[in-house]
Amino acid sequence: MNVAIMGYGTVGSGVYEVLTKNAQTITRRTGTELKIKYVLDLREFPGDPVESVLVHDFNVVVNDPEVDIVVEVMGGVHPAYEFSKEALLKGKSVCTSNKELVAKHGAELISLAREKNCNYLFEASVGGGIPIIRQLIRSITADDIERIDGILNGTTNYMMTKMRDEGLSFDAVLKRAQEKGYAERNPAADIEGHDACRKIAILTSLAYGKQVDYEDIYTEGITKITGTDVSYAASFGRAIKLIGSSSIAEDGKVYAIVAPKMLKKSNPLFMVDGVFNAITVKGNMLDEVMCYGKGAGKLPTASAVVSDVIDIAKHPGTNIPIIWAQEKLELGRFEDMKNSFFLRIPARNRTMAEELLNIRETADGVLEGEIGIITDVMTEGAFAEAAKKLEAVSVIRCE
Amino acid sequence: MNVAIMGYGTVGSGVYEVLTKNAQTITRRTGTELKIKYVLDLREFPGDPVESVLVHDFNVVVNDPEVDIVVEVMGGVHPAYEFSKEALLKGKSVCTSNKELVAKHGAELISLAREKNCNYLFEASVGGGIPIIRQLIRSITADDIERIDGILNGTTNYMMTKMRDEGLSFDAVLKRAQEKGYAERNPAADIEGHDACRKIAILTSLAYGKQVDYEDIYTEGITKITGTDVSYAASFGRAIKLIGSSSIAEDGKVYAIVAPKMLKKSNPLFMVDGVFNAITVKGNMLDEVMCYGKGAGKLPTASAVVSDVIDIAKHPGTNIPIIWAQEKLELGRFEDMKNSFFLRIPARNRTMAEELLNIRETADGVLEGEIGIITDVMTEGAFAEAAKKLEAVSVIRCE
Repeated sequence: MNVAIMGYGTVGSGVYEVLTKNAQTITRRTGTELKIKYVLDLREFPGDPVESVLVHDFNVVVNDPEVDIVVEVMGGVHPAYEFSKEALLKGKSVCTSNKELVAKHGAELISLAREKNCNYLFEASVGGGIPIIRQLIRSITADDIERIDGILNGTTNYMMTKMRDEGLSFDAVLKRAQEKGYAERNPAADIEGHDACRKIAILTSLAYGKQVDYEDIYTEGITKITGTDVSYAASFGRAIKLIGSSSIAEDGKVYAIVAPKMLKKSNPLFMVDGVFNAITVKGNMLDEVMCYGKGAGKLPTASAVVSDVIDIAKHPGTNIPIIWAQEKLELGRFEDMKNSFFLRIPARNRTMAEELLNIRETADGVLEGEIGIITDVMTEGAFAEAAKKLEAVSVIRCE
Repeated sequence: MNVAIMGYGTVGSGVYEVLTKNAQTITRRTGTELKIKYVLDLREFPGDPVESVLVHDFNVVVNDPEVDIVVEVMGGVHPAYEFSKEALLKGKSVCTSNKELVAKHGAELISLAREKNCNYLFEASVGGGIPIIRQLIRSITADDIERIDGILNGTTNYMMTKMRDEGLSFDAVLKRAQEKGYAERNPAADIEGHDACRKIAILTSLAYGKQVDYEDIYTEGITKITGTDVSYAASFGRAIKLIGSSSIAEDGKVYAIVAPKMLKKSNPLFMVDGVFNAITVKGNMLDEVMCYGKGAGKLPTASAVVSDVIDIAKHPGTNIPIIWAQEKLELGRFEDMKNSFFLRIPARNRTMAEELLNIRETADGVLEGEIGIITDVMTEGAFAEAAKKLEAVSVIRCE
């Protein structure tokens, strides 16, 4: 079978490496040889082995009837969307690591692939090398999914780990992450939670079978977390992680959120440190399973892309069914979402807090003149009202 | 599609519950309704809803052309093997949780299913609800697998956790586990490591595509672990877990072992406590991924069985390819296997130890008159010789 790789950046060159280095194993597993016929990129790569298959014109790829599978690892929505669509229209399967495109147009491209009896697969779009997409599509199929919680962004998890372990400030860890190449020079997509938001949108769409628009998901990054918050977390025996969550509530509605969360030590996500990612899925029969691994990186991500290529090559002429309708899933309103909360208030408001909140735990003495409180579960709306009255200076959701 | 459940014990009744309670979700995901046509069991269940579909004669099931999928959850090798084979010969797909049967005859039944263009699937045979089998068959396909390490037995992991956390003796925790229903009255299969051995045999067969006979795997249970060993582990900042491992060594040979192991805190398996199971898989591209969850229990196991049923129902008339040849995989010799070791020796042999071993860490003072040592990596053969000379009283493999 012939494969074309669109985009020869980090992931694209990783895909090239996996397909060539592991060719023998892949042929054995696939039952057929996978040949890289083209690599599409606007740039030149003199002296690189891809030179002999390098093309600059998408039309060469899409109009070649010998190309069976297109790997789209260009990133960005345009022209990746147009290219993917054209390829699918010609009956070529597409595999991608492009979370932005999948979150935005996944439902349409999946439906188009089904029509054309080919495939649109995107294992690498969430959790890098962690096989969470296939787990939702193919493994956790007997269950009603009750909750998904994920550490979906390695950069922010690295930062939160360093703040806790080395007592560094937010700015200091951000600088460190940038030096190490974990954070981009413009780190907004990571630290503001947008990256995690696209990923939980994809997972939630798959879990409930309908389109979740990421713009609908309340998203809060880690930029407001201070060393004092981290100290409070420690005093409660908890850790703060940026978590993307979705769950189905008693009212039958699906709620989704990206925000820092204080996790208990008993939560399997508690111990997920550094650049690692992990996702827990709770089914009504299965209880909780967790998948853990490298959420980014050239080769882990490329390995996930190639696992999609292999899946397609093993089932030629077959559409692997994915249930993700274009119909929009209306999420529950943010105000109605239920959470437990951590907040810091001036110590003089202690009595008022006892009146306004059901308090689960209190921490004194972390910072003079204030107390830290963990509340019982309550709605976002009711909490916001109370927090205002209490002059809360820091709010972090709790498990 | 029509399903027959063979065996109405814990898992069988769980499968019935999952298929009926989650019928709506399952129909949506499968695209077809799954009807339980028969439940086969020798016993009567007066008043139970299965009464109306209960049969006692296997021939009724196997000779009914309307039965598409047979769920074999009887346990034991006979007559489960004969029944599964007959069903496959008639072109009926079979799903099972029967690790004994899969470890023993999996390769043959998979090959028979391929011949008959149906399926033999066994997700529930390892790790209960954890989707590790599908991960090896369908997800981690682009990688050469370098290592698998698993906490594959919840009973022993519960026991090791309690010994550590509550300082209980082996006999006391065993009694506790039996009272809680985690351990059988005859606990040999768990505590001697036989259960974990069958599971690592299955995983290793899938990872390398050939038959691994579990009789060939060196297997050591947890019966010799004492409170003193647990104290030593703590003094090294480690935890002792019963681990099933296989890996491909530099000599190109696959080595497999089931034995207690002292894990470092940095190992993701370190924090897997209580009755939970977890498996790490290391690929040459993917690096390490871990899957974690309930390794046993009625509903988690049943959920995994039903996920196989759904996989089959989604691809009617298709064989899902599984590479596990009947050809035997010759494992590397036990004596040549390389490990790091913990051992306890009389303090007077310290100098001899320094001559015979490359010592990585030493612990004094845990028990008077002796020292604990962790060695560098060396072969089992060379270690055994040294340990004898050193009058070692306790040996545990180390990370």
